[in-house]
Amino acid sequence: MNTVEIIKRKRNGEKLTKDELKFLIDGYLKGKVADYQITSFLMAVYFRGMDDEETLNLTELMLHSGDIINLDHIKGVKVDKHSTGGVGDKTSLILAPQLASLGVYVPMISGRGLGHTGGTLDKLESIPGFRINMSEEEYKSTLGKIGCVMIGQTERLAPADKRFYALRDVTATVDSIPLIASSILSKKLAEGAEALVFDVKMGSGANLQDERESEKLARKLVSVSRKFGKKAVAVLTDMKEPLGFNIGNWLEVEECIEVMNGRKIDDLLKVNNVLAGAMLWLAGKAKDIPEGEVIAEQALDNGTVYAKFLEMVQAHDGSVSYIKDYKNKKRPAYSRKIISDKDGYVNGLDAFGFGVASVMLGAGRKKAEDRVSPLSGIILNKKCGDKILKGESVCELFADDDSKISDALPYTEKAIRIDTKPDFEKKLIIDIID
Amino acid sequence: MNTVEIIKRKRNGEKLTKDELKFLIDGYLKGKVADYQITSFLMAVYFRGMDDEETLNLTELMLHSGDIINLDHIKGVKVDKHSTGGVGDKTSLILAPQLASLGVYVPMISGRGLGHTGGTLDKLESIPGFRINMSEEEYKSTLGKIGCVMIGQTERLAPADKRFYALRDVTATVDSIPLIASSILSKKLAEGAEALVFDVKMGSGANLQDERESEKLARKLVSVSRKFGKKAVAVLTDMKEPLGFNIGNWLEVEECIEVMNGRKIDDLLKVNNVLAGAMLWLAGKAKDIPEGEVIAEQALDNGTVYAKFLEMVQAHDGSVSYIKDYKNKKRPAYSRKIISDKDGYVNGLDAFGFGVASVMLGAGRKKAEDRVSPLSGIILNKKCGDKILKGESVCELFADDDSKISDALPYTEKAIRIDTKPDFEKKLIIDIID
Repeated sequence: MNTVEIIKRKRNGEKLTKDELKFLIDGYLKGKVADYQITSFLMAVYFRGMDDEETLNLTELMLHSGDIINLDHIKGVKVDKHSTGGVGDKTSLILAPQLASLGVYVPMISGRGLGHTGGTLDKLESIPGFRINMSEEEYKSTLGKIGCVMIGQTERLAPADKRFYALRDVTATVDSIPLIASSILSKKLAEGAEALVFDVKMGSGANLQDERESEKLARKLVSVSRKFGKKAVAVLTDMKEPLGFNIGNWLEVEECIEVMNGRKIDDLLKVNNVLAGAMLWLAGKAKDIPEGEVIAEQALDNGTVYAKFLEMVQAHDGSVSYIKDYKNKKRPAYSRKIISDKDGYVNGLDAFGFGVASVMLGAGRKKAEDRVSPLSGIILNKKCGDKILKGESVCELFADDDSKISDALPYTEKAIRIDTKPDFEKKLIIDIID
Repeated sequence: MNTVEIIKRKRNGEKLTKDELKFLIDGYLKGKVADYQITSFLMAVYFRGMDDEETLNLTELMLHSGDIINLDHIKGVKVDKHSTGGVGDKTSLILAPQLASLGVYVPMISGRGLGHTGGTLDKLESIPGFRINMSEEEYKSTLGKIGCVMIGQTERLAPADKRFYALRDVTATVDSIPLIASSILSKKLAEGAEALVFDVKMGSGANLQDERESEKLARKLVSVSRKFGKKAVAVLTDMKEPLGFNIGNWLEVEECIEVMNGRKIDDLLKVNNVLAGAMLWLAGKAKDIPEGEVIAEQALDNGTVYAKFLEMVQAHDGSVSYIKDYKNKKRPAYSRKIISDKDGYVNGLDAFGFGVASVMLGAGRKKAEDRVSPLSGIILNKKCGDKILKGESVCELFADDDSKISDALPYTEKAIRIDTKPDFEKKLIIDIID
């Protein structure tokens, strides 16, 4: 067996055996296979794909490159959700305390924002004091005590994936279905959950631009998870326009706090509660997803979710008083409203454009080492399908620096489409793969 | 402009601009673009290809990464030949003195054998004392004095190609037409020739296995050469069976000496003289290729080619007495004949199989750092289409070590096909692209 032959076989569209993948990945971790051979292999995978068995084997090898957390000491079902990433996609912040308040354990290991999509860790860190690093012991005990825990990926979980991802990011091989699936799953399987719900985004703000590709990814995530003996559901959700009203780290946390305190935001609640319903169903707490959705809704209404959220923030050393002060809107120094110059209907709020603009405002990263600004971002005043009058605000931009607003403005304006007649069909839940 | 975007554009099948290729190659040479990004790019090129303009630009950038030898001081046409590599392919050794004896200058920079094909430098070095390294000054003066010169690639010619090739070799991106073409041309254009003849091999012993791919490569080499203002012809020649009778370094030199002394070997002479004819035509010494072929034949018959060959060997410090002693067959310690066990016709002598067997005997390299054995190799006693009787020898294997003969034997036996009825169509010159 040799590296060049293995790359060549994949390049020629042949199926690789588990031994061949092992040779490649073990060799890479041991320094016998070079970075430049792995990137050539990854590009061949981009073009030739991998079937379920190859994806399973790749996932397993990356999973076993590090520690696997054992949560058997916690008596109760452990369910996690993973989103492929979107703009204004803040459901993790609600789902974790929501499910915990309903007796389902949520061990959640999240990532940072990169590109035009936000990251859960950056949002959590906009809460003063919030610690996203924990030892494995603290992670386990917090989960046992609170029912949920939200940390960042440690060095010891799926290190092969971490190295592969760093290479993919700089060699244009991010958007490959088997590589995305094995990357997500190797991390999710390491964190100890027994059931997984995948929120696979579709539309301009999603990471995969092609809708058929998103559907393929959803099916791959579910089928490979099941091969690992995990229960799994994938929900294909809309990401043509941003989810909810707020985009940006603290702005999204604030919106979630409002929702946990009774604010009704249609699209955010719908997506959130379908995901919650799927998690409850997999946990055996509902007979099907619709029943789970109803249970989830009720939990939000009775205030227990917010109480659980505060409990979690405290366990992570986050400032509870800062959270409780949420009505005293915290905003950065500079802001600008985008005003409609005509009467009409909002037919488009392009999620990708809003994502790019929010990165320019400081809410996201251009490079992995960039620091994010906690208060910066965008608040939508209208959503797609809404009527708008001349002089009304479509959205408002926030930043620490006025020049950032000037930079983001043209991208935001380009993302907005207002016509005289309505032309927008809302479909939030596109499909459920269960 | 950034590296990832450039890789992504090629990956998506878009055409790269000259500036983008320059960004990539200059960046690589300056250490700003990493090896692992180049290999990902090369694999994308493998899948997406490059059009003539991109290939031209890539070639030009690699060419200008190093020195370009100026041969303007030599008054006379400078023509070179390049072969894509085959088994028993020894025409360079005859063509250089042959054309020089006819007043055409041949500045030839060659490579070593790698894989199943032999290399001109290894053959030359089987002549005791023969120096394949020369300074640029010595290269120029030898060419001016003798009319031909045969050296190895220096560090200063197309260094970008050298680094690209080293990466391609270990990442399964060798067999890509635009990459092969730009690699060949960046070196050939650096050596100072005004006209180029390409011998593109077809059949199992060729580097490209698919015949349509070989034809595409031939057309690409000619069209891109012309874009550089060079005259060019490509000859598509057969490589189903080895060319001539001898395979191996000294064995091939010996066969060439015999040919230069009047031995008639049909296939070797035919291919050699068509190539010589094309070179003479491009040099303005013949009105067309067939006339050039006749002139080339006559030169071999009148002994001037052999005299020029001895002159060239001497200029390179090679042992002329060793050459002159060629009738005293020099062979290594071990040999074995393969005997036919039936009467019939030789319908197959698979060139690839013989190439692999000759590497195992020590005539070629498995890795770039391997040393070759000068006397090892194979001598065919029959050629395809020949009648054979039970007990007659098909070929004889030679090596320094008996175990190497045992290793090579099964590969050789598998490469031989003898049937009761003749079933072989000889077509040496498949096409000429002029």
